[in-house]
Amino acid sequence: MTQTREDFEARLRQIGAERYHDLHPFHDRLHGGDCTPDQVRAWVINRYYYQHSIPMKDAAFMSRVEDPALRRAWRSRIEDHDGTEDNEGGIRRWLRLAEAVGLDPDYVASRTGVLPATKFAVDAYVRFVREKTLLEAVAASLTELFAPKIHASRIEGLLKNYDFADDSSLSYFRNRLKEAPKDVAFGLGWVLDHADTQEKQDAAAKALIFKTDVLWSQLDALWAAYVEPGRIPPGGWQPGTGLLDARAA
Amino acid sequence: MTQTREDFEARLRQIGAERYHDLHPFHDRLHGGDCTPDQVRAWVINRYYYQHSIPMKDAAFMSRVEDPALRRAWRSRIEDHDGTEDNEGGIRRWLRLAEAVGLDPDYVASRTGVLPATKFAVDAYVRFVREKTLLEAVAASLTELFAPKIHASRIEGLLKNYDFADDSSLSYFRNRLKEAPKDVAFGLGWVLDHADTQEKQDAAAKALIFKTDVLWSQLDALWAAYVEPGRIPPGGWQPGTGLLDARAA
Repeated sequence: MTQTREDFEARLRQIGAERYHDLHPFHDRLHGGDCTPDQVRAWVINRYYYQHSIPMKDAAFMSRVEDPALRRAWRSRIEDHDGTEDNEGGIRRWLRLAEAVGLDPDYVASRTGVLPATKFAVDAYVRFVREKTLLEAVAASLTELFAPKIHASRIEGLLKNYDFADDSSLSYFRNRLKEAPKDVAFGLGWVLDHADTQEKQDAAAKALIFKTDVLWSQLDALWAAYVEPGRIPPGGWQPGTGLLDARAA
Repeated sequence: MTQTREDFEARLRQIGAERYHDLHPFHDRLHGGDCTPDQVRAWVINRYYYQHSIPMKDAAFMSRVEDPALRRAWRSRIEDHDGTEDNEGGIRRWLRLAEAVGLDPDYVASRTGVLPATKFAVDAYVRFVREKTLLEAVAASLTELFAPKIHASRIEGLLKNYDFADDSSLSYFRNRLKEAPKDVAFGLGWVLDHADTQEKQDAAAKALIFKTDVLWSQLDALWAAYVEPGRIPPGGWQPGTGLLDARAA
């Protein structure tokens, strides 16, 4: 049976409560100050692949949108990441974080050393948006609903626990606190408006679940490679490499 | 043998000299004042499908670009068509032209009545950009090299020969005179920089030829349906329909 708008929104929020990656133990470790510098670096390197791919995902979405008004509403996401004349953009901000944790930003931007499992998960998301319905693509973006909480606790936890953390290195997260709410308000409204049958609501919920899988599996890969058992797969970043100051190696 | 930069540029320009759709007799007819009002309307309706598809093509390109700087350079093309806060954008300008020639802009925007051959050609271009190399995608955009001449002679010809033509209805073409040169300077430089082997130069030249085919075949379809033999295919726009003022029908 088709759910009411309120019930359907509650269902989507429940998916976040049960599956969003703020529940992953890597984040407790990161925000609680228990990550080694190399574990933080591994996170920065791998998460960069996601940042790098998001504007391509958003362009893939726009390439399928027939309605100029919807394209216009979506375009700011690309601007937020790639930057504009007044805004350096999230990708450059992430590279400042990379530098703050002692990584060579060119190394990080090269995406060498990204774990294959990270790439598979992120590439699956880009492909999902390229191939599924627009409703599923927008629904998958709704993990942003759950992001402000994780960004706020990340800023607090990193500032408290790591020397590298300051306003400059964490500017990515502060900016997302401003940007994500406008995106998600639009995306949520669009999904609630368009998921007007049970079939569409089920598809939208499934898309959001898929996206939580994309995020979660990146942290599982990070954990396996750099926490326990700590077995870095062939080609994965090796601590001591890719550093800003080669003498620090 | 790989051509020099200058020779290769000359080869690309020669493609325009031989194949660009300014050579198509429909344009002589249009600019010379020999089109009936319905032939002008048919052109406006069908060419709208191209305008409508171009931002999707550009987003498809961006969805494949790994380099944020290249995405940033390309993004203005979408802004030029879809509009920004300060700029109504090319799609809305085209709909003003539609209104000026007596068409209901909502009808034109619905893309009902667009000739199937127009859709096939334009959709082939979007698919080309989605699937071919980035070099081929950029090279295909270089028909913009030849556009300023056609826009200038179009403005002159339409103003001289048709009552509907004024600054408002022709603002699309005036704006393209401003926008196209910056796009094409970037695109041409990029192609000349990246086509650094004979194989790539041949591929780029072939892509530009493909694009001239896309443009030319739209005019052939228009001619066949509305000039001679004037046999409108099933589903094609029927004169007297889609008008702004239904009483005019």
